[in-house]
Amino acid sequence: MFVVAVTVFVKPENKEDFVEASIDNATNTRKEPLNLRFDVLQCIDDPNRFFLYEVYKDESGFAAHKETEHYKRWREEVAPMMAKDRIGVKHKNIFPINEEAFFSK
Amino acid sequence: MFVVAVTVFVKPENKEDFVEASIDNATNTRKEPLNLRFDVLQCIDDPNRFFLYEVYKDESGFAAHKETEHYKRWREEVAPMMAKDRIGVKHKNIFPINEEAFFSK
Repeated sequence: MFVVAVTVFVKPENKEDFVEASIDNATNTRKEPLNLRFDVLQCIDDPNRFFLYEVYKDESGFAAHKETEHYKRWREEVAPMMAKDRIGVKHKNIFPINEEAFFSK
Repeated sequence: MFVVAVTVFVKPENKEDFVEASIDNATNTRKEPLNLRFDVLQCIDDPNRFFLYEVYKDESGFAAHKETEHYKRWREEVAPMMAKDRIGVKHKNIFPINEEAFFSK
């Protein structure tokens, strides 16, 4: 599996719009054939800090995601909402090792 | 749901031992009644950087986790392996909203 973890700091006045755009992106990404998971989280200690946890079957799944209309729409919509550059970190899974444990409908 | 995201920078010579200790912790944590998920990941661009993604039903689940023998064992074992202090960030879920989508056996 290929896991992308993205931290986003949003301008306080854009929190609601960021959430709306990110739910749209997550909902559509979950329909991609190589996506296994897309969690959108809000930091408890800093409500302007958000976290996207994206799991794909492999790196090609992430590449395909970046070509989708919903990703491009999200990227364009949220760019002016960010208080600073977003931070994306790419990972491979160590545990669990099997795809089933990552996947839930 | 209550999600704890932990970033750990490990001394290069301790990578294998850290992985072993963390798989033990993850495997046992998945058996806790309030744990929904425990992913152990390795950063692709920096193999000494690891990421733990822990999902609990609620904050009490995380509190219970910290009282377990397997957590205390992990904490003690990996403390000397870390190149710097680990960073834990607590979150609440925005998407998905239902527990089923977080949970897989």
